[in-house]
Amino acid sequence: MTRQIRFNAFQMNAAGHQSPGLWTHPRDTSHRYTDPDYWIELAQLLEAAKFDAIFLADVLGVYDVAGGSVDAALRGGVQVPLADPLALVPLMAGATKHLGFGVTATLTYEHPYTFARRASTLDHLTRGRFGWNIVTGYLDSAARNLGLDRQLGHDERYDLADEYLDVVYKLWEKSWDDDAVVRDKASRVYTDPSKVHEIRHEGTYFRVPGIHLSEPSPQRTPLLYQAGTSPRGVQFAARHAECTFVSGPTKEVVKRNIAQLRAAVGTAGRDPRSLLVYAQALIVTGATEEEAQAKYEDYRRHIDVDAAIALLSGWTGVDFTRYAPDATIEYIDSEAGRSALASFSKADPSRTWTVRAAAEFIGLGGRGPVIVGTPEQVADALIAWQDETDADGFNLAYALPCESMHDVARHIVPELQRRGRYRRDYEEGTLRHKLFGRGSRLPVEHPGRLVAID
Amino acid sequence: MTRQIRFNAFQMNAAGHQSPGLWTHPRDTSHRYTDPDYWIELAQLLEAAKFDAIFLADVLGVYDVAGGSVDAALRGGVQVPLADPLALVPLMAGATKHLGFGVTATLTYEHPYTFARRASTLDHLTRGRFGWNIVTGYLDSAARNLGLDRQLGHDERYDLADEYLDVVYKLWEKSWDDDAVVRDKASRVYTDPSKVHEIRHEGTYFRVPGIHLSEPSPQRTPLLYQAGTSPRGVQFAARHAECTFVSGPTKEVVKRNIAQLRAAVGTAGRDPRSLLVYAQALIVTGATEEEAQAKYEDYRRHIDVDAAIALLSGWTGVDFTRYAPDATIEYIDSEAGRSALASFSKADPSRTWTVRAAAEFIGLGGRGPVIVGTPEQVADALIAWQDETDADGFNLAYALPCESMHDVARHIVPELQRRGRYRRDYEEGTLRHKLFGRGSRLPVEHPGRLVAID
Repeated sequence: MTRQIRFNAFQMNAAGHQSPGLWTHPRDTSHRYTDPDYWIELAQLLEAAKFDAIFLADVLGVYDVAGGSVDAALRGGVQVPLADPLALVPLMAGATKHLGFGVTATLTYEHPYTFARRASTLDHLTRGRFGWNIVTGYLDSAARNLGLDRQLGHDERYDLADEYLDVVYKLWEKSWDDDAVVRDKASRVYTDPSKVHEIRHEGTYFRVPGIHLSEPSPQRTPLLYQAGTSPRGVQFAARHAECTFVSGPTKEVVKRNIAQLRAAVGTAGRDPRSLLVYAQALIVTGATEEEAQAKYEDYRRHIDVDAAIALLSGWTGVDFTRYAPDATIEYIDSEAGRSALASFSKADPSRTWTVRAAAEFIGLGGRGPVIVGTPEQVADALIAWQDETDADGFNLAYALPCESMHDVARHIVPELQRRGRYRRDYEEGTLRHKLFGRGSRLPVEHPGRLVAID
Repeated sequence: MTRQIRFNAFQMNAAGHQSPGLWTHPRDTSHRYTDPDYWIELAQLLEAAKFDAIFLADVLGVYDVAGGSVDAALRGGVQVPLADPLALVPLMAGATKHLGFGVTATLTYEHPYTFARRASTLDHLTRGRFGWNIVTGYLDSAARNLGLDRQLGHDERYDLADEYLDVVYKLWEKSWDDDAVVRDKASRVYTDPSKVHEIRHEGTYFRVPGIHLSEPSPQRTPLLYQAGTSPRGVQFAARHAECTFVSGPTKEVVKRNIAQLRAAVGTAGRDPRSLLVYAQALIVTGATEEEAQAKYEDYRRHIDVDAAIALLSGWTGVDFTRYAPDATIEYIDSEAGRSALASFSKADPSRTWTVRAAAEFIGLGGRGPVIVGTPEQVADALIAWQDETDADGFNLAYALPCESMHDVARHIVPELQRRGRYRRDYEEGTLRHKLFGRGSRLPVEHPGRLVAID
């Protein structure tokens, strides 16, 4: 069969995600994020369009690097106000049958014992459609509000993350045997105690002696997403991730990233094809090329450069408000700032990258490409991206959260289906089975299956 | 108007709650707790019967006092396996319009900064129907799995709880002004930064410098439930609680408890009537007295005494498996054990209280009365309970989680409505407004409104 293109919807339980300023567009509906009907409608739209999943980003802090305060982020609606993404899962699950849910949860800020139960519960209530995007946290402001002076060092965060995963794997995979819950009314045995095991975990960061509180859910371990990009992050993702995201403005950059990721997965002793890679992209389409282009220009006019600089500053840790918007790399007096701007230049050397240019670039759809055109042109581009980069699919950012997804559902999905590059129906079964076709459980060679309890 | 009787449904996201062994009944459906449709059906039933709320108990540990292991709890399905109650709220909220949600969350095990966002999110997604049952935790097994050797001392837990509430009050009530979110598209201001305030909390247990991440939800502070019974617990409840639960087998005991609670609320500077008190009860009804009595006897035959002893041991911290089931108080060689058995005897001196008798008593519907009879008899009894004890309503335990609620909805609610003692329709508005008729916010004299930020 021809290789299929997969879609994830990249969203956040907040008014602004990755297109700062677009909330000012007359057709924007993103302020409805506090309205349950908004999420039910969106989930049903995505399911009708056979998306793999809705993927919910999260941060537990604020973007307060720009100007040393949260003011620019507040003014520009940059991922604040912000709500808990996990609460959306049961709501959307109740209104859908197949759509998957990939949710970001920062592991440094919740104990694995309580998080394991939260995740098992969501996997039960979604009937096996819950995925966890493992994040180690990148905002100092989050750490400060949780009583720490600053977050752990970068590599130490990953050491803690490895142990955290050991704990939750033990709880999810090893504490309850498949046949532990017997519910034998005659003998009055709900659970056979000989088939439930204390995990007796004693590590550097965590000590968890007991049993998992929840019985095994359909997938046991939720589908694991992770998107580390540093060397230590890639090593972590190669060990644990079943799905990942890459973002780069050009096919060359994305192709190189994907090749590195698959190689790292192989080095970790897993099948390189057992990692599904979604490349970030924003699709802007219309009936004619002119209409699509006009829509793109209209969106671009709503980018808020100050808000985009607040986002860029938060991501990089560099206060870019200290420089003139037209400053090029020579005028940046910090190593981190030069490195951040150089990454844009490296990805696309055809342009001169100023602070403003970088902000405007991420200002529409974040760090991926914007693909503009008729449905035929967009389908051509997506197929070229997949064929040339080896991406399994796309993590679709939005300009306007509902309109962008509607446009893809109405115009792009049918065009890809006509070409045999997009499924017409969901498989039955859990999210993991839908994606890999090998049942609901982690593959036997995955570290989550290999973990042992004493 | 004649005083109205209120109903709460007392449930848990687990197969067994307070009627250990009843899961073996042929008509039991409690194992469906992992099925989303189960909760949707239950929520819709309770809303049709105009219940105030579904109230979800929780523990974060296991009942491992009996026999020094979790085996008896596992075998008997005593609150294990167990899932996260918070995840049920958006699911049930999506299927209802008026029902309230009171959810237990143990504050010693989640940081107030993350919990505050979780609660704001649920209050948004329920359109102001979220209530929080504040619990400080009572199982050592929970503490051990969260990396502590044992839980904090009893009074220190309440000191920490007072500070925890200060932190969340500051986040919910003081961080965002009512008019902070302006969403002015023309001037590109989503939120006015001058109207969002850092809480700068520096205390004994917590340091939270920043702003609340979420914008104000309909109730801001969720409706507050708390049910402390120790002197320090009553003092805490009197300060914070808007709703509380009492459980006692006789009207005399419950009347005394309620009088003490209301007096403590007055001492704390609040209107004693600003606390709604729900008395725990189990209702068993049928078309005739004989039918109701036969149903009651049928339920009683399904009590699992070993499981009930596991529950009793967990609640009291006394391993009652060390004694013969027929042991009376004279044979109990521990102070705590004698005190636990004495509490039954004090509540109802008309019986001889053995370990088995105490276990069988809590084995059907927990520590409240079981009211058995025709709808007319039950209505008479409920009215007498309310009139004599000053309870505002009842926290209804179940024998079988759906059948018991169905019986109340079908038989008892219409009978009380005929007598003018039960509402026929919900008020519009948030949960707090439905209960108190004074708007969505905490009353101005509540400590949550009085808290100040520097």
